[in-house]
Amino acid sequence: MSQAYAIILAGGSGTRFWPASRKALPKQLLPLGASRDLTLIAETVQRILPLVPRERILIATGADLVEASRRALPELPSNAFLGEPFARNTAPCIAWAASIVARRDPAAVAMVLPSDHRIADEPRFREIATLALDSARAGAITTIGIEATRPDTGYGYIELGDVVRPGIRRVLRFVEKPDRARAQEYVASGRHVWNGGMFFFRARQMLDEIRRHLPALADGIASIEASAHEGAEREQAVVRSVFEQVPAVSIDVGLMEKLETIHVVPGSFGWSDLGSWESAWDLAEKDAQGNAGNAPFVAVDATNNLLYDLRSGPKRGVMTIVGLHDVCVVQTDDALLVIPRSRSQDVRAVVAELARRGEHDKL
Amino acid sequence: MSQAYAIILAGGSGTRFWPASRKALPKQLLPLGASRDLTLIAETVQRILPLVPRERILIATGADLVEASRRALPELPSNAFLGEPFARNTAPCIAWAASIVARRDPAAVAMVLPSDHRIADEPRFREIATLALDSARAGAITTIGIEATRPDTGYGYIELGDVVRPGIRRVLRFVEKPDRARAQEYVASGRHVWNGGMFFFRARQMLDEIRRHLPALADGIASIEASAHEGAEREQAVVRSVFEQVPAVSIDVGLMEKLETIHVVPGSFGWSDLGSWESAWDLAEKDAQGNAGNAPFVAVDATNNLLYDLRSGPKRGVMTIVGLHDVCVVQTDDALLVIPRSRSQDVRAVVAELARRGEHDKL
Repeated sequence: MSQAYAIILAGGSGTRFWPASRKALPKQLLPLGASRDLTLIAETVQRILPLVPRERILIATGADLVEASRRALPELPSNAFLGEPFARNTAPCIAWAASIVARRDPAAVAMVLPSDHRIADEPRFREIATLALDSARAGAITTIGIEATRPDTGYGYIELGDVVRPGIRRVLRFVEKPDRARAQEYVASGRHVWNGGMFFFRARQMLDEIRRHLPALADGIASIEASAHEGAEREQAVVRSVFEQVPAVSIDVGLMEKLETIHVVPGSFGWSDLGSWESAWDLAEKDAQGNAGNAPFVAVDATNNLLYDLRSGPKRGVMTIVGLHDVCVVQTDDALLVIPRSRSQDVRAVVAELARRGEHDKL
Repeated sequence: MSQAYAIILAGGSGTRFWPASRKALPKQLLPLGASRDLTLIAETVQRILPLVPRERILIATGADLVEASRRALPELPSNAFLGEPFARNTAPCIAWAASIVARRDPAAVAMVLPSDHRIADEPRFREIATLALDSARAGAITTIGIEATRPDTGYGYIELGDVVRPGIRRVLRFVEKPDRARAQEYVASGRHVWNGGMFFFRARQMLDEIRRHLPALADGIASIEASAHEGAEREQAVVRSVFEQVPAVSIDVGLMEKLETIHVVPGSFGWSDLGSWESAWDLAEKDAQGNAGNAPFVAVDATNNLLYDLRSGPKRGVMTIVGLHDVCVVQTDDALLVIPRSRSQDVRAVVAELARRGEHDKL
């Protein structure tokens, strides 16, 4: 059986979880998951270790995030980290990683996984991922479709087609983030699942499809491959030049939507993309008053709040709240945010204002 | 003309402005006044310097607060600070301070002032204090009555009697904190003013009245005086023993309410006792959205909030708030409080809970 690799996508701009997340510390590097001690990216790696050994995991991240990613994943070999010199969305870095996988093992299959999602039911996720890997080995680029439990307008959807074999269906089409009415239709239809950005494929097959649909990118990847024999310094210069020139495009738009045949394994495994502080509260363990915190707090006549203390140092401060409800309070060494849960998305407005003021160390 | 001394009362438990105020850092040691750089006690001293030179100012504070008080008032001579070994309310420390004043100058008059109030119109305050000092020189223990501008149930009131001479009236009686209905009557009557805890008297006269109405206290003070000739160590031991035994009583209840004749100078000079974070917001300079802060902050769709950053160190964190109104957010190095302005008094519940948990370093 061909060996499985994992390509974990770990870019990210770090806006939605400000002030915890920053340009230099995006969401996957924060301990927002089930464990207070593990970063989301470390949880992602832990989750797949029963399927993929450490030596076959690649982390595709920004060049400026390589060091922080290494610190979060000290058990991975140091050549596991691919630093993209320019952010070019997902297609270029997946192509680059696939070419490295194919070079190591031309018969390998690979799974592409986001680094910053939460998955509550890990055994179920691994069953579904195993099914998707098998489907990829059998020759179909395959994705996982997440059961749509509410008409969320923040996700792309996948319309399910015919059953290929038990647990596996054809993708009829990918649909971009819908409006509310459309999303409600989708959920009611039972024929739509969420696109969670997880893809499974034979590495060589992926490179062939990129050659077909994104030929400029394929040329760039080929020149990186060619430079690999000319020393690390030369290779790095070529990577830089390729990423500088290659257009930014997502793997969904650049490739997946153009393929005739994609398979999908629909499934339900307690998935969340952790889109905002609101979702962090949703998923957090709460006390009897509905308050959640990552450290001891005092709440007087206060319900359904999130109290998140991410200050460094041996002694955190105590967070206290009186007479407030449905609010998120997040504290870091250099910033504090107080925001109603329902307005979590508007943290962008704060980040925009700080940018306008030139407070670059706060972004 | 007899020399004037000032006795500034600087005890305090530090609860109402938690987390800024602490047992070891009560309100008068915080920069809650008009100037962001001056503590309230330093503002109090500045305010009276045109009336009383530095060498004639005494600070009556807790023994554990002497060092912090000295740091707040470095320009005062170090023998200006009287450290009470046990908190015994205001009568014992006023008696002690009066005896020191009388020893230095048997003909002196003294003014007793709280250390933690705000006064907006300082020239007007000094006019009124000058009138009160003159009244004291003329032989009447005198107080200042603050124009009652609302039916506040948090203050004691003074009922005004006959006019003695222009600007000076007799006190008909002192009344303890009234209920709402009574307070409304008082304000409507126009015959009641607030008791701001400011007293003016000849030092020897005060000691005579204490001898008459609080003889046990007078005995204690006499033994402290006697020990003054036996060296600082012996004197300190006697102070300790006297304060340990003497009953705790306020000057209002222990003395003022028992005197036949007290004069009062009614006046209006932008006084506030700064009773809570709510009053700090009331008095703060606000932006167009009604937000007040002591450092730059970001407020998005947020109005009438107080954002107070009292963290130490060269770089404060930025405080940001979205979609909230009428809230106080106060941050210190080791604690954070978020509370609606209208519930400011309930910070006590937070302090009580921290005490219950044994978090003594947070109290």
